[in-house]
Amino acid sequence: MILFATSNLHKFKEAKEIFKRYDLKIKQVGIKYPELQSDKLEDVAKYGVEYSVQLTSAPTIVEDSGLFIEALRGFPGPYSAFVYRTTGKEGVLRLMENLKNRKAEFQSVIGYCEPNKKPIIFKGKVKGKISYEIRGKFGFAFDSIFIPNGMTKTFGEISLGEKNKFSHRGKAFRKLCQWLKQKLR
Amino acid sequence: MILFATSNLHKFKEAKEIFKRYDLKIKQVGIKYPELQSDKLEDVAKYGVEYSVQLTSAPTIVEDSGLFIEALRGFPGPYSAFVYRTTGKEGVLRLMENLKNRKAEFQSVIGYCEPNKKPIIFKGKVKGKISYEIRGKFGFAFDSIFIPNGMTKTFGEISLGEKNKFSHRGKAFRKLCQWLKQKLR
Repeated sequence: MILFATSNLHKFKEAKEIFKRYDLKIKQVGIKYPELQSDKLEDVAKYGVEYSVQLTSAPTIVEDSGLFIEALRGFPGPYSAFVYRTTGKEGVLRLMENLKNRKAEFQSVIGYCEPNKKPIIFKGKVKGKISYEIRGKFGFAFDSIFIPNGMTKTFGEISLGEKNKFSHRGKAFRKLCQWLKQKLR
Repeated sequence: MILFATSNLHKFKEAKEIFKRYDLKIKQVGIKYPELQSDKLEDVAKYGVEYSVQLTSAPTIVEDSGLFIEALRGFPGPYSAFVYRTTGKEGVLRLMENLKNRKAEFQSVIGYCEPNKKPIIFKGKVKGKISYEIRGKFGFAFDSIFIPNGMTKTFGEISLGEKNKFSHRGKAFRKLCQWLKQKLR
């Protein structure tokens, strides 16, 4: 059993769907850990999981993710949640008005830590582009303005199971699950 | 002698100008402290100064500030430095296009801490509005798009000494200096 320190139910559901495929168990715990200000998600995840594992005394993960837009020099990046709460998707689309370079990348970083051990990091990313309008009602945060490469639909227009197949978070969680399976052999 | 943990020379110069008026000494130290992700500057300052004082073993301050725009629900707020580095002033003006409510507030929070003591917080703020264009070459960050109430010029169009008279940071530093003077009596 792995504990997932998060208050985000969307993230937890995505994780659970993947854990189930690997026949592994995961449980949500509502720990509020200190999130660092850093341009690197890895720093945020490491710091957060080291803090959380001290409270849980059990194998624990945290996950941090962000949308990095090339033409905006990585904005909103590690502060995607704050930007979503304040300017919203509409704000990001407005910043992208008349910009031809719409390249963007979703990144996910999982920090895994056992008591009295060093954290281990698992990463996933997906390249794509920012749409010209909000599309779809699935997913959360910036899903409905992100079109992964090779697709025409946004993450907001596909189901959770489908999104997990090639999303940043899906990739990171599969890496974690494969590693856990290896470990349990 | 107070140590100011910051890598921002602009901030240090503003602080020094005020300390000088109070006949107090301040020195810049290039400590990189962990900055929390929080919508409250106070949390960032407390956490940062508690960390810094352990390295300096001497009375130490950190200062965190941000621009809070009402129509953007507090954006860019505690992440002003990151937003400045990525979308820039131009991005903020773009988000404000066609918005009539241009109310904004600059906030500054100083965390002061002596070794083995609890941190003390000093705050300053200044209300104003976001200009329609970038004006002035003084100051730094968002100074050149912020017009304090009762003025027609932006913070970018006035000198450091003049800005300090009613800026958020000026107010917070005067509170700190008055408190330090009281303490030294």
